[in-house]
Amino acid sequence: MQQIQVTAEKILNGDRRSLSRAITLVESSRADHQEQAAQLIAELSKSKRTALRIGLSGTPGVGKSTFIEAFGMQLVALGLRVAVLAVDPSSARSGGSILGDKTRMDYLSREANAFIRPSPSQTHLGGVARRTREAVTLCEAAQFDVVLIETVGVGQSETIVAEMSDLFVLLLAPAGGDELQGVKRGIMEMADIILVNKADGDLKPAATRTCADYAGALRLLRKRPQDPDGFPMAMTVSAVTQNGLEDAWQKMQDLSNWRKETGKFDEIRQSQARFWFQEDLKQGLLSVLRQPEIVKLTQKMADDVAKGDLAPAAAAQRVIQTIQGQ
Amino acid sequence: MQQIQVTAEKILNGDRRSLSRAITLVESSRADHQEQAAQLIAELSKSKRTALRIGLSGTPGVGKSTFIEAFGMQLVALGLRVAVLAVDPSSARSGGSILGDKTRMDYLSREANAFIRPSPSQTHLGGVARRTREAVTLCEAAQFDVVLIETVGVGQSETIVAEMSDLFVLLLAPAGGDELQGVKRGIMEMADIILVNKADGDLKPAATRTCADYAGALRLLRKRPQDPDGFPMAMTVSAVTQNGLEDAWQKMQDLSNWRKETGKFDEIRQSQARFWFQEDLKQGLLSVLRQPEIVKLTQKMADDVAKGDLAPAAAAQRVIQTIQGQ
Repeated sequence: MQQIQVTAEKILNGDRRSLSRAITLVESSRADHQEQAAQLIAELSKSKRTALRIGLSGTPGVGKSTFIEAFGMQLVALGLRVAVLAVDPSSARSGGSILGDKTRMDYLSREANAFIRPSPSQTHLGGVARRTREAVTLCEAAQFDVVLIETVGVGQSETIVAEMSDLFVLLLAPAGGDELQGVKRGIMEMADIILVNKADGDLKPAATRTCADYAGALRLLRKRPQDPDGFPMAMTVSAVTQNGLEDAWQKMQDLSNWRKETGKFDEIRQSQARFWFQEDLKQGLLSVLRQPEIVKLTQKMADDVAKGDLAPAAAAQRVIQTIQGQ
Repeated sequence: MQQIQVTAEKILNGDRRSLSRAITLVESSRADHQEQAAQLIAELSKSKRTALRIGLSGTPGVGKSTFIEAFGMQLVALGLRVAVLAVDPSSARSGGSILGDKTRMDYLSREANAFIRPSPSQTHLGGVARRTREAVTLCEAAQFDVVLIETVGVGQSETIVAEMSDLFVLLLAPAGGDELQGVKRGIMEMADIILVNKADGDLKPAATRTCADYAGALRLLRKRPQDPDGFPMAMTVSAVTQNGLEDAWQKMQDLSNWRKETGKFDEIRQSQARFWFQEDLKQGLLSVLRQPEIVKLTQKMADDVAKGDLAPAAAAQRVIQTIQGQ
């Protein structure tokens, strides 16, 4: 407990090395590490420090790394401390990670007021989700003002990131034709701000057209209670020329301020906390099945079921009764 | 228990009305009904009676009802008793069911040796799966020789049906062009026999061509240990003219006999039983969260989490400890 207090103190003082070690702790699957991590999180939660959590999704090729580099540097220049976390369900398979190559964020990674952390290599998206949420809490305690949570636009990772963000930003590239790049309706409905990147040089007209298409599409969606007039919105940016980045940050602040004033900001966080509690509950309950004595019982039952001596449902019931201590 | 014995006796004697009531019992979500159903299943399992379980998948428009009617009548003519069960994840939403309209199987539904049962109206596909498996057990105890388990080709229902069938048959319509109707690779890999229906009249050439395409595609798949030479296979049938139905039944018997002789038949059933045990275990464990005292605790915890007094993971852990009686 002594050790935990010391680490907590260092993190609260913004020490990046301690933050980094603490994230490694929450990412560990070792039971003792998990216990320490839980204690640390509980300790740090007392600080009630909070950052603006910005979810950012973009498929490979939209210039996400370049955008984060430029956008992050702009925030640092404004005197803000910026943390970048990644949720990448594919990193478990590839062994790599979207943020593994920090050289793609050459400047930002060397900034004293920036912190970049690749996605944990976990097989379960649920595991990645929990660890990333805990990393967000750690970053907030470590005095970061903005936490960017980035993900690639595949599968469920966008939903997961949106459920842990105050604002959800969708980064897109200019479309060739007049079609909407196959962005799924569900993703459109999660977006607060759509940024069409690469609005520079030859691609500028295409970016402007794509932006107009998305703005039109957003107007067709039903208005959500968490949106002020003019939101969700689409705008063009260029990570390369940095055009529009300032304006994008202004829009994010406008939206966040409106939500704070109307109480929506806290409402969203509360509803997210309830969501993750339910998820943690389900995952945690299922993880009971991995406890050694339960695994042993389950294997025996499975053999009886295979032999036809016991119906699957009846065998399942016996295991569940054992878990419930009956 | 007395009552259960009487019902079991009637079902074992092939009484269709008792069978029908017993299926209603397994479909009920009432706890006392569930208990009675479990006792009945346990009692009937002792008979060790077994039928050939044929999974049949086909999207709307392939002539599935007409096929089942004609194929079922053929089996009945051979002196076999035939039960038809449906797994339809959409019936919960539509309120209807693919087999709800029994008039589409006018002859078969009036046969003394046939039994047709629509899909239970359940919201969870997992619930439909468990109830259908139990209905299969009931039909087997009631002396049916063949149990046809049919499903529409949507979402996960095909996987579920394949996991409870001895043979999996995919029913297709002749394709217009030379493309493979967008049948997903995963479904192709589950199929033991592909039947291209409507091989009659003007559609006969298209059916023959489609069949050749699928036969070619099947040859490209890796050989599975449960396949004798020549399987998985594709052939044409016509539910309307009944051409090919006899041959299709012969192929099903050939495959089933080979698997029985080589021990593969039992191996598949054992592996399916293990699979369903694991599924029942997961679903059953999660259903503990719906027990009244757990719901009450969970709601209180969720409020604390929303207020920020407790981290989601810590709150989840407390509920899980309560469930484990700690």
